[in-house]
Amino acid sequence: MNNENETITLDDENVYNKVLLDDLLLQNHIDEFRTEFLTMHTYEQSEYFEDSEDEIRQRIFEVLSPEEVANFFDQLEIDEEEYEALFDTMNASYASHVLEDMSYDNAVDIMNNLSKQKIVSLLTLMNKDDAKEIKALLHYEEDTAGGIMTTEYISLKATMPVKEALMHVKEQAPDAETIYVIFAVNDDKQLVGVLSLRDLIIAENDAYIEDIMSERVISANVADDQEDVAQKMRDYDFIAMPVVDYQDHLLGIITIDDILDVIDEEASEDYSRLAGVSDVDATNDSVTKTALKRLPWLIILTFLGMITATILGSFEDTLSQVALLAAFIPIISGMSGNSGTQSLAVSVRNISTGEIDEQSKFKVALRETGSGFLSGLVCAAILLMIIIVLYQQPILGLIVASSLTIAMTVGTLVGSMIPLVMNKLNIDPAVASGPFITTINDIVSMLIYFGLATSFMSYLL
Amino acid sequence: MNNENETITLDDENVYNKVLLDDLLLQNHIDEFRTEFLTMHTYEQSEYFEDSEDEIRQRIFEVLSPEEVANFFDQLEIDEEEYEALFDTMNASYASHVLEDMSYDNAVDIMNNLSKQKIVSLLTLMNKDDAKEIKALLHYEEDTAGGIMTTEYISLKATMPVKEALMHVKEQAPDAETIYVIFAVNDDKQLVGVLSLRDLIIAENDAYIEDIMSERVISANVADDQEDVAQKMRDYDFIAMPVVDYQDHLLGIITIDDILDVIDEEASEDYSRLAGVSDVDATNDSVTKTALKRLPWLIILTFLGMITATILGSFEDTLSQVALLAAFIPIISGMSGNSGTQSLAVSVRNISTGEIDEQSKFKVALRETGSGFLSGLVCAAILLMIIIVLYQQPILGLIVASSLTIAMTVGTLVGSMIPLVMNKLNIDPAVASGPFITTINDIVSMLIYFGLATSFMSYLL
Repeated sequence: MNNENETITLDDENVYNKVLLDDLLLQNHIDEFRTEFLTMHTYEQSEYFEDSEDEIRQRIFEVLSPEEVANFFDQLEIDEEEYEALFDTMNASYASHVLEDMSYDNAVDIMNNLSKQKIVSLLTLMNKDDAKEIKALLHYEEDTAGGIMTTEYISLKATMPVKEALMHVKEQAPDAETIYVIFAVNDDKQLVGVLSLRDLIIAENDAYIEDIMSERVISANVADDQEDVAQKMRDYDFIAMPVVDYQDHLLGIITIDDILDVIDEEASEDYSRLAGVSDVDATNDSVTKTALKRLPWLIILTFLGMITATILGSFEDTLSQVALLAAFIPIISGMSGNSGTQSLAVSVRNISTGEIDEQSKFKVALRETGSGFLSGLVCAAILLMIIIVLYQQPILGLIVASSLTIAMTVGTLVGSMIPLVMNKLNIDPAVASGPFITTINDIVSMLIYFGLATSFMSYLL
Repeated sequence: MNNENETITLDDENVYNKVLLDDLLLQNHIDEFRTEFLTMHTYEQSEYFEDSEDEIRQRIFEVLSPEEVANFFDQLEIDEEEYEALFDTMNASYASHVLEDMSYDNAVDIMNNLSKQKIVSLLTLMNKDDAKEIKALLHYEEDTAGGIMTTEYISLKATMPVKEALMHVKEQAPDAETIYVIFAVNDDKQLVGVLSLRDLIIAENDAYIEDIMSERVISANVADDQEDVAQKMRDYDFIAMPVVDYQDHLLGIITIDDILDVIDEEASEDYSRLAGVSDVDATNDSVTKTALKRLPWLIILTFLGMITATILGSFEDTLSQVALLAAFIPIISGMSGNSGTQSLAVSVRNISTGEIDEQSKFKVALRETGSGFLSGLVCAAILLMIIIVLYQQPILGLIVASSLTIAMTVGTLVGSMIPLVMNKLNIDPAVASGPFITTINDIVSMLIYFGLATSFMSYLL
């Protein structure tokens, strides 16, 4: 397998053979297993590990060195709750070796899911240098720049000659998270410049770092939100970004692979919020767990729905006199809900991409409302004609049509403004989920509809 | 400004001073403008350009060389329709120079928005080599691997000694899109291996490329969907991926910055679809344009809503006898719509991340339905109690509660299955947008509710 060229294209669904690997492992063909497994890409190794049962995972820990396991643990993605049990199946010294051989940032990500007690015992078993670095990183909040950075970067004195710098890079290459972006510091370890390995390679041999570095360094503060960091790195097309404290001391770097995860997380968060689910990506949950996760929301919505029902109940007289009014409840509440969700989506997206400034966000919200009014008018005109043709009731048609226009205008206003206002008040905009907006719009649109209908009751009879 | 160290953190909202730049330009302080502008990062340059009016843009073309403009045009993001007008403001020879100095993939992205005639005239003015490369890239579909790849990569013969390879990289560094991933080819230009610049740097001087390259190359076919490429690159943590034809000939590379754009696009697409808007990111549209974009959908929904209204109209007798039934229309249709949207979100996400296989997707859909039934039961029990307490009508309560349970179960089934079935039938799942599912669920839930109510009418009177 190893001697011939093998180009793997995207169409090859299974780039590894799980059955073969399992067999080799269970039938004790350790050498063959190792050869087969270690020629796989670390991502494939991690996929194989994720797909394997405990028995296989146990065997893997028996036949691979901590370093070999660390290589693919860097890409491991299992449920957060599973880590404690997984690390219980390794003996403590092996586990601590695995963690110290991983990238610090990834080791920290995993350790954040372990119990305090476990963390302490693992740190004690690590070599002192690694333990110190990991301990420091464990202190940062998970969703800040500090929480996703690693300390395995290459930094050089700004006064170093290029020739010496290249030697340095070569030496540090095996351990650094990236060697393609190099940071220049002064004697106080303050960040003063940045250069790419490309700059270094094409530089004249007698130049110094400070001659070729860029002094306009875009950096993140260690406490910055990971979302802001992701946005900046995407804007600037960075493959690595330095993280500093308030005195510009270089503390670590964030690399593009971590940013991909952040972008994914954030997109998934916005998306889940719009749908009113807590986590759209939890595909392994059981029926009960899925139901339990959604229930709090659905129960709140049931109570909110009861408000709508109570309002409608208070119009029982109106309804019993003109029962046909009920027929248009779904269309009015539905259209108001739909246009509200559309505007909500635009607003939330504008907040989270941060691409436009505060003032423009409100301008967009106003534009949404205007567009809600315009579309409302058009849909209302269509509805009016249909009602006249089907039921020959022009007054009913006018009431339904005006209600629809007002409900859609208010719907878009609610949908676009609520997240903006919440964001401004620093309230978690998670409350402004799609179903919540829809239910609010139900209440508002029913009040409008039956308010109008009751006022013009005499014309309807 | 240039001599002192300047660390820019994320909090600095405006890293450039638009007023100052505008003034320098309009008052003809060309040298100062150039110094100020050219020390800015290309991303900031592109932001400044995007924020500027035509008059300023015109001046920029007068004081910057095509190469200087090309540098920040690589990061330019304006509306697709604007490019034709923008290129009309440059003289043709200047425009063609800008394009040939850009990365080929970015030049092609821009040219895809120009008229055929304009493209031909620009290609004629370019130098032959660049024109040939760009022409070749223009042939690929925009959302395939070919459409986002560039041909400015570094490839070396597998038989080359490491020492010679390093010289080669150094030579090609200024023009290559990335020098950090290097591709090894055989005499037929077929891709046979891949190595990182890091591998090359830490290799023994007397080694050959084929000794240190990895022969397990993960590549994309030129016709592969850009989404699949993005997924693979994210999985494998690649910063560049080779693109080949069916005979493994290396055609180009895709770099991580292009992938970030693709991921963004795709997430935005799923999100927009859930909200039922065509493009959530078009923040510059006018009120009328926004309304016009949304109207086709809203009109379809109006007609679908009329189906619900007609169904309810046919139950006019039932409604006029028990007007209170109308009070629970919004809660039943709303909850069924909400749970449908939640399941829709999960299904669409599972389709688009491609992380689970076909069979699991249907398993997830079944789990969704089960969870819809469970949550329906709980919400129904709550609703039943409220109705008994508020209205002392246990029969009405039972009818509403059973309708809610059935409607939520069917709602989740519809929400999770429709996108899967559409995907299987190769129908564009855009039709399965949030509002569409909600409206379908309106119809279904009202049929259930009034079906039940009419059947048990005698107990209600």
